[in-house]
Amino acid sequence: MSAIPEDFIQKTAQLSDDVTRPFPSSKKTYVTGSREDLRVPMREVECTPTHTEQGEELNPPIYIYDTSGPYTDPQVTIDLRQGLAEVRANWIAERDDTELLDGPTSEYGRQRQDDPELAHLRFEHIRQPRRAKAGKNVTQMHYARQGIITPEMEYIAIRENNKLQEMRGDPRYAKLLRQHAGESFGASIPEEITPEFVRDEVARGRAIIPANINHPELEPMIIGRNFRTKVNTNIGNSAVTSSIEEEVEKMVWSARWGGDTLMDLSTGKNIHETREWILRNAPMPIGTVPIYQALEKVDGKAEDLTWEIFRDTLIEQAEQGVDYFTIHAGVLLRYVPLTAERLTGIVSRGGSIMAKWCLAHHTESFLYTHFDEICEIMKAYDVSFSLGDGLRPGCIADANDAAQFAELETLGELTQKAWEHDCQVMIEGPGHVPLHKVKENVEKELADCYEAPFYTLGPLVTDIAPAYDHITSGIGAANIGWYGTAMLCYVTPKEHLGLPNKQDVRDGIITYKIAAHASDLAKGFPGTQVRDNALSKARFEFRWEDQFNLSLDPDRAREFHDETMPKEAHKVAHFCSMCGPNFCSMKITQDVREYAAKLGVSEEEALKEGMKEKSVEFVDKGAEIYQKT
Amino acid sequence: MSAIPEDFIQKTAQLSDDVTRPFPSSKKTYVTGSREDLRVPMREVECTPTHTEQGEELNPPIYIYDTSGPYTDPQVTIDLRQGLAEVRANWIAERDDTELLDGPTSEYGRQRQDDPELAHLRFEHIRQPRRAKAGKNVTQMHYARQGIITPEMEYIAIRENNKLQEMRGDPRYAKLLRQHAGESFGASIPEEITPEFVRDEVARGRAIIPANINHPELEPMIIGRNFRTKVNTNIGNSAVTSSIEEEVEKMVWSARWGGDTLMDLSTGKNIHETREWILRNAPMPIGTVPIYQALEKVDGKAEDLTWEIFRDTLIEQAEQGVDYFTIHAGVLLRYVPLTAERLTGIVSRGGSIMAKWCLAHHTESFLYTHFDEICEIMKAYDVSFSLGDGLRPGCIADANDAAQFAELETLGELTQKAWEHDCQVMIEGPGHVPLHKVKENVEKELADCYEAPFYTLGPLVTDIAPAYDHITSGIGAANIGWYGTAMLCYVTPKEHLGLPNKQDVRDGIITYKIAAHASDLAKGFPGTQVRDNALSKARFEFRWEDQFNLSLDPDRAREFHDETMPKEAHKVAHFCSMCGPNFCSMKITQDVREYAAKLGVSEEEALKEGMKEKSVEFVDKGAEIYQKT
Repeated sequence: MSAIPEDFIQKTAQLSDDVTRPFPSSKKTYVTGSREDLRVPMREVECTPTHTEQGEELNPPIYIYDTSGPYTDPQVTIDLRQGLAEVRANWIAERDDTELLDGPTSEYGRQRQDDPELAHLRFEHIRQPRRAKAGKNVTQMHYARQGIITPEMEYIAIRENNKLQEMRGDPRYAKLLRQHAGESFGASIPEEITPEFVRDEVARGRAIIPANINHPELEPMIIGRNFRTKVNTNIGNSAVTSSIEEEVEKMVWSARWGGDTLMDLSTGKNIHETREWILRNAPMPIGTVPIYQALEKVDGKAEDLTWEIFRDTLIEQAEQGVDYFTIHAGVLLRYVPLTAERLTGIVSRGGSIMAKWCLAHHTESFLYTHFDEICEIMKAYDVSFSLGDGLRPGCIADANDAAQFAELETLGELTQKAWEHDCQVMIEGPGHVPLHKVKENVEKELADCYEAPFYTLGPLVTDIAPAYDHITSGIGAANIGWYGTAMLCYVTPKEHLGLPNKQDVRDGIITYKIAAHASDLAKGFPGTQVRDNALSKARFEFRWEDQFNLSLDPDRAREFHDETMPKEAHKVAHFCSMCGPNFCSMKITQDVREYAAKLGVSEEEALKEGMKEKSVEFVDKGAEIYQKT
Repeated sequence: MSAIPEDFIQKTAQLSDDVTRPFPSSKKTYVTGSREDLRVPMREVECTPTHTEQGEELNPPIYIYDTSGPYTDPQVTIDLRQGLAEVRANWIAERDDTELLDGPTSEYGRQRQDDPELAHLRFEHIRQPRRAKAGKNVTQMHYARQGIITPEMEYIAIRENNKLQEMRGDPRYAKLLRQHAGESFGASIPEEITPEFVRDEVARGRAIIPANINHPELEPMIIGRNFRTKVNTNIGNSAVTSSIEEEVEKMVWSARWGGDTLMDLSTGKNIHETREWILRNAPMPIGTVPIYQALEKVDGKAEDLTWEIFRDTLIEQAEQGVDYFTIHAGVLLRYVPLTAERLTGIVSRGGSIMAKWCLAHHTESFLYTHFDEICEIMKAYDVSFSLGDGLRPGCIADANDAAQFAELETLGELTQKAWEHDCQVMIEGPGHVPLHKVKENVEKELADCYEAPFYTLGPLVTDIAPAYDHITSGIGAANIGWYGTAMLCYVTPKEHLGLPNKQDVRDGIITYKIAAHASDLAKGFPGTQVRDNALSKARFEFRWEDQFNLSLDPDRAREFHDETMPKEAHKVAHFCSMCGPNFCSMKITQDVREYAAKLGVSEEEALKEGMKEKSVEFVDKGAEIYQKT
């Protein structure tokens, strides 16, 4: 019998309808790979036909990279107390390089397990943790370097392609596949993402697949500049009390709007139990900053931190299934004075904790001195490194300074060390950077860290807009993604001011989905423009519902439209509230277009045969269609 | 006796408190120039002292470029029925090159004047219009080319400098004046904006001062890439009825949040009367698209438009005081077929009207064929050209295509023609452009249009986010401003969906103020970073109130903060809701900073004397201060 109180069960077992209802005119489809248990989810958006004088023209469905997990699949019964299905379970087991442990091997994990007072908070079906067998290395990088294509890699290839090859072979998509050649600043984006390409990128360290063997519920995804730009979201409360159910709901909410990964940054109490609930129900990789929890264990006294406490925390979290750890191992003792003349000093929480520890002990950071031992832990569970930028700038004035770049070089040194262990690594980046200094960050990271994937917070391109920092940072994010950053860590409107609520989280994610998509368009990632084209075609053809449904936030698009034109009839009207029925450029242009179609004049022909002559002809006949306007 | 109904008077005479109350801890100050009637407004934000162990450190006031007009000056009594004070009246009169007319010389202007049914809508104190004396040219460009520095030019120099020279001479600002060197892509931004520099830029056509002689209420401002990046806002309703008072309130609202210029895009009825109310109360330049009103005059039938109707409209509006006209004179007959293969054809209203007219008449646009006559009108009132981009792309797919760039070349040709008349010109630009194709737009504009100021709408860097197009376009705007665009036309969240309400307008403007400021930081405009530095210093020192007051939107910053920490005491607390009292990187860093100050270690010294040695010493003593944490 579970000791969870009734109201807790009710709440957590029933997510709000907000976070689970399917998107309008969308259905969940799966592409099955080389094995039956490899099913890659996609969102298929149905579109309505275009009505022309010649009759109906069908508009093919549009596929959207789907981060929302099983929550938007009506076929799946969601029960948070059971957790999600273990989609990777067979793959992990078949590799036969891991063993099931009797229970948690971390001291803290055992303590929490044995504490009867926590029974009412505890996830009910805690699995035995899994760990690499002695002498084995279970990282995706290790497999990749041995030439093995894992099911995770195949899954990712299918997911990244998003049916592009099928669309290329389907004439209905011909118009929609039009795309500008990109400018990728030396990235190596192929026309098709093959499983072998995934393997190769992981093997050389240019991409990572955060996928702890204790997180079999995970739908695999990849972070690398030659793949789609990803968005990380954050949850987690601080001193203020926050309930487990709230955090789980936030996680599902993040997934819904397009969060590719999620960091649990909790610093409150019961974070061990909260994490378990989140992991068992998370379809995306989960990251943490273990030093936060370690600090809780020493009652917030940075100087009381020890390697042993930190080590135990890593194992505790790795055995729960955390997929990546932010570790600020680049904050070296000698870099601390470099921050003394800064306008805002050290703004990273992890960075300031480690700076404090280093100063208090007159010695080098234990994260740095014990780095090899950390790698041993990481590779036993396949936890990826997210090497933290503890000395990132906290304001425009401090951008790209000596402290920041000194740390970056050390992160490069640590990357090589991690790679010697076949550990997966990404590098965290700033922060606050004026627009013209953003590119230097990417260039230095690629050079100093050997193209390990870059993962940046924003950057904010100005400090003067608290309450709008999703926007100040979204500008920087779109640019840094274009230049080669693999994952963008979102920022909400509440940054610098308070804790984000659900609405803030939605605003933050959508802003970052915009930034990531803008980056992919600019880099020229194949197929990215299909959605833009389909939405713009719908707009031009006054297919209002399709315009809403294809957008990043169909609910808000519909709501905004309905504020001025609420009637259902207006959703098929050939005008809108901006210009009114008799004053619409789109409408006029359609007349021109229809006329051109009748003539059989294509743009190329007009150019070929001499613009002037053709224009006259075009206009000669064109006049007719305007007589009755 | 006025026939305005009582409720109308009450509403228009009393703007809502929302739009007029002064900003918190701010006062209106004026810098007086070389003559008593040349008083340049600035907003002065008072800052609270920093409390250190050594005692109080005073923080000097920060000056903010102030677009809000007399509305935020408690010394000024606002009466919309009287209109604003005529700050430029003497300057215009003294030049003695204009004459007062008996009344409107346009046919339509007289009609409206004589229509008794409009009495209740009419502004009560319509002045006699003013026009250049026969043979005179009254444009600021004409004066500039004759070597004359007008009061408008001096006003602008003071305004753009924003007390930078005074700050440079004041040791209290030493820390705050720190600024990154910019990357301006060949702009010629001086260290100090002198009146002579203003004159020179206007003379060579690189900047314009939109300032109709019939708009003496105007607070002069400049648009050019070597000055601060400006933001244009739009108001105006379409078929739906909108009241005059709403439009006037919107104009003041725009000014409040930082709109530098405003376009009245109304297409409804009574736009003549609405425009009068707006102009008489507008401290910023007002722009229009005269073809909209001309189209109303022919009941929406584009093919019925004539040069005569258009010409009359230009004169009507010029005599009211409109400062710049969007004229789509580059939409040539032969370019229309170039849009036939586009995904979304012609999306500019003006562009599609002219395309329709050209097709209907088998002939070249009257805007193009009568361009010299248009120039004659423009220079008689000093109305600036905003040469419209009627063929701008309406979606990502159509960006940077043959139609768009063909039109741009024609705009260059027209620029030279206008300059032969000493008419001021800016060039409108797109639209929808992927991030990597934004720069090409600026480069082509600068080359094809001889560095005439560029004025762009966004651009939106993706089409997939209706309801968030302030953000999709804000990303493009920050970039295009950085590359050299002089003014950014704002986009609200309702773009593509409906008419913006007050909240949407605020969101749109703040987003564009962010973009413009980010551009200025990136270009390295002198003094731009002072506000970032002051705000970040306040943040670092937990001066919450200063942080709010220095931000672009103090109200919302305060409101967001108060959602999680409403108590007054928290506004001086040395922590916030994000990390809580015992977990604050800013706090830890301050300890480090204070310690360093005691040691007398500067960053440079640390570097000079060898980082390692100094670090050890730094840390040796540093340990002490952490004992009691």
